Amino acid sequence: MSPSRGAANSTLGRIDFVLAHARRTGTLHSVLALLEWDQQTLMPSGGGVHRAAQIEMLAGQVHEMKTNHAYRESLDALSTENLAEIASHEERANIAVLGRECQRLSRIPVSLVEQIARCSSESQQVWIEARKSRDYSLLLPSLRQMFRLKKSQADALGYESSPYDALLDEYEPQMTTAELEPVFGKLATELSKLVQKVCGAANAPGDEILRRKYPVERQKKFAAWAAEEIGFDFSRGRIDTTHHPFCTEVGPGDCRIATRYDEAFFPTAFFGTLHEAGHGLYEQGLRSDCYGLPSGTFCSLGIHESQSRLWENLVGRRSSFWRYCFPKAVEFFPEILSGSDHDEFVRSVNRVQPSLIRVEADEVTYNLHILVRFRLEKSIMEGSLEVADLPDAWNDQYESLLGIRPLHDGDGVLQDIHWPAGLVGYFPTYSLGNIYAAQLVEAAQPETGNLDELNSSGDFRPLREWMNRHVHHHGQVLRPSELLKSATGQSVSSGALLGHLTNKCNEVYCL
Amino acid sequence: MSPSRGAANSTLGRIDFVLAHARRTGTLHSVLALLEWDQQTLMPSGGGVHRAAQIEMLAGQVHEMKTNHAYRESLDALSTENLAEIASHEERANIAVLGRECQRLSRIPVSLVEQIARCSSESQQVWIEARKSRDYSLLLPSLRQMFRLKKSQADALGYESSPYDALLDEYEPQMTTAELEPVFGKLATELSKLVQKVCGAANAPGDEILRRKYPVERQKKFAAWAAEEIGFDFSRGRIDTTHHPFCTEVGPGDCRIATRYDEAFFPTAFFGTLHEAGHGLYEQGLRSDCYGLPSGTFCSLGIHESQSRLWENLVGRRSSFWRYCFPKAVEFFPEILSGSDHDEFVRSVNRVQPSLIRVEADEVTYNLHILVRFRLEKSIMEGSLEVADLPDAWNDQYESLLGIRPLHDGDGVLQDIHWPAGLVGYFPTYSLGNIYAAQLVEAAQPETGNLDELNSSGDFRPLREWMNRHVHHHGQVLRPSELLKSATGQSVSSGALLGHLTNKCNEVYCL
Repeated sequence: MSPSRGAANSTLGRIDFVLAHARRTGTLHSVLALLEWDQQTLMPSGGGVHRAAQIEMLAGQVHEMKTNHAYRESLDALSTENLAEIASHEERANIAVLGRECQRLSRIPVSLVEQIARCSSESQQVWIEARKSRDYSLLLPSLRQMFRLKKSQADALGYESSPYDALLDEYEPQMTTAELEPVFGKLATELSKLVQKVCGAANAPGDEILRRKYPVERQKKFAAWAAEEIGFDFSRGRIDTTHHPFCTEVGPGDCRIATRYDEAFFPTAFFGTLHEAGHGLYEQGLRSDCYGLPSGTFCSLGIHESQSRLWENLVGRRSSFWRYCFPKAVEFFPEILSGSDHDEFVRSVNRVQPSLIRVEADEVTYNLHILVRFRLEKSIMEGSLEVADLPDAWNDQYESLLGIRPLHDGDGVLQDIHWPAGLVGYFPTYSLGNIYAAQLVEAAQPETGNLDELNSSGDFRPLREWMNRHVHHHGQVLRPSELLKSATGQSVSSGALLGHLTNKCNEVYCL
Repeated sequence: MSPSRGAANSTLGRIDFVLAHARRTGTLHSVLALLEWDQQTLMPSGGGVHRAAQIEMLAGQVHEMKTNHAYRESLDALSTENLAEIASHEERANIAVLGRECQRLSRIPVSLVEQIARCSSESQQVWIEARKSRDYSLLLPSLRQMFRLKKSQADALGYESSPYDALLDEYEPQMTTAELEPVFGKLATELSKLVQKVCGAANAPGDEILRRKYPVERQKKFAAWAAEEIGFDFSRGRIDTTHHPFCTEVGPGDCRIATRYDEAFFPTAFFGTLHEAGHGLYEQGLRSDCYGLPSGTFCSLGIHESQSRLWENLVGRRSSFWRYCFPKAVEFFPEILSGSDHDEFVRSVNRVQPSLIRVEADEVTYNLHILVRFRLEKSIMEGSLEVADLPDAWNDQYESLLGIRPLHDGDGVLQDIHWPAGLVGYFPTYSLGNIYAAQLVEAAQPETGNLDELNSSGDFRPLREWMNRHVHHHGQVLRPSELLKSATGQSVSSGALLGHLTNKCNEVYCL
């Protein structure tokens, strides 16, 4: 921490106070990341009760620091001052983002924050039971309460046209329903058509080659090798095992991936690791000198997801990627792959198959799963759908978009933890990630050179460094739409993604 | 946290406030334990700088909570009130211990705390260099400064006869130099004689059997098996790998052991694990309903060490223990041990050999290493030895007590991190642990039954449960000398330890 450049009640003094306070908050917040990482990877079961107490205590402290009086007052004062001559562009951006975050948090009454936290914790417990017994009626009361609370949150935050916008803004700043709908609408129409075409194709690949016995210890080593190849730095990170894969930053220089392994299905761990390593490259690419400040923080969930999808799908499932990696795979799994064919393998990892479960979906249909959720949660927030009617609406949407209908709610509306956990407005960021990723890869190639050539020779550095420069290094100084504009020259558009998926299907399905 | 039973400014209100505050402090303190555990086991090297910032921030918060104004005032007020009718015996003990801790911490000026922390961090860096180049003159300025600061700390804390008492009290409450000297004096005389006898014995065991190649993965499993056998509960703990073995409690229900492995020397990991598991049994035996309060906290470092030494040495190196475990060891290492003899193995793990390095010393000579350090640090604190003269004094002591003299300071005064780290008055607790352990085992047997019979049948529960009742469950409600008196009926005395070691040497060396 550098000493303050001015008296506490001067503009410079306030700037220094606000930035130092945000850095301190970031440090405390990062301790929470370690507590949660440990809970999901290594903690013995007996530690659960105390861990909840540790997390509750630190989360409370972080919330207090993000909203406390002196901090808020300084931000309020700075918002009325002209900082153009006194502060750098980056400092002004930091102060603006911190000001918006503080205002946002301050608008939600503490009692509502506590109600949502309690309802989230209870609903998640109920959800586990409801999913097990495939009984939506068990979850209904909690879920109704959760959507009611989220509506109150939207009202407290304020919005122009749709209450859904207020929630979306938390995960994807400034994104609105109005902007999203045409983009997602086109995606739904085109992808549905593509899936129909693919399902009618004569020459569909199988996936037997992926369902042989891949020993977990060797899967770990192969996935770690691939993560290191694309640039994940193990001196500033690690990979561990968990049930629900994630990536978290414990601090600059300490980014942790957790993944899961399925001995009988190769893609789970491999593409899961590439996905989380993509998130990891973003965290490792952030500016460590700004840790805790917006300029050292990821831009949005959608942009974060673009980085994971990029390496998982746009690079990792490409034929040219396997031109480099398949010989290595044969080295790792000689008894499984030595007689096999690169093309067969690539077709298998790109197989398209409408299915009921989002987390198992392929690259094409995945977006349709998201679109279902987007439409439904938006309708509930806007009052045009009742929470009680969710299961039928869900099943109708699946039938219309994917051509299949769940037989029970366990394979339907009960499959995700997001709504019981209070994450409403979160789902769209998954598809936004896919959309952004395709736009970014398209924009990068004039500078990096042809992606297939780079992939074939295992040269992942140009693409990674392009992302460093055009995405990672900006932190939150640019908002998502500004970042996209500056990196690609475009607004959000599903064109690049649709082009990529259509080409891929034409190739894999010989359409 | 239960609601307060009285108004904030009433006696009951103050009691509730103080106890709830101590519990909250304990929760925050336990987060620090996870940060440190992770740093020493899994953290990628790139995370080091940020981890230091996280630890500094939380350590500062914990210190603030332990000394803050409202808390201190409540404790001060309670110290003048008659609590006999209003609070339970346990509550009164908790308040008394918390009051002493708060007073102790408040007596040391914040500036001195900071100076010691800075000097400790700097000296440890210098120490690494000095040890590497075996050059005491490099360390001398920092070490002189550290001892000067520790003298200031002793003066701030106050003492009756020796400034060393003030430091000792931090690790072993109420223990004094006056009480320690005759106990340690007798130990020095008798052990020196025993070592001489052993060194002249015709029938000395070798240790070739321990120096074969023991694959690390199987060592891990065998040591974990033994830890579980003596009662370490893996649903409330775990074992990991580290450079410097330790045991830490992340919370009730989450106790973590870290140990190290040497493929070419069996005892390092095995007895190291038993040692740390002994510490672990103490932590797992503490009352989890009092976490954060003195009644749920270990009594002293000496008592803690008694629990580790007990399982490592008094149980783990006993012939009867191997009557149960040796067949299992043969199962784990058939290619190494199947032709071998139980007696040869037991004699090897009990070999006595004067050596220069404390952490590699055997059960007998270990205490002589400690006595050297005790005499020297006491002399410095009392002003009868100059820090500059430490190396010669060290070497003289080794020659007189162990009959060998270091050839350079790397094998002498530079071997331990304790003094550069500011841990003065800490060493005696290692030998106190040995002394207490022997007294406790002697006192337990009338109730538990003969230890050799229990060991031979692998029945470790009676001894463990005796320790639960007589040691663990008291927390800090009894002070070390009170706990020893209540458990054994005796004051601290080296008799039991000397008897145990003499018997063992007679057996192993056929004296």
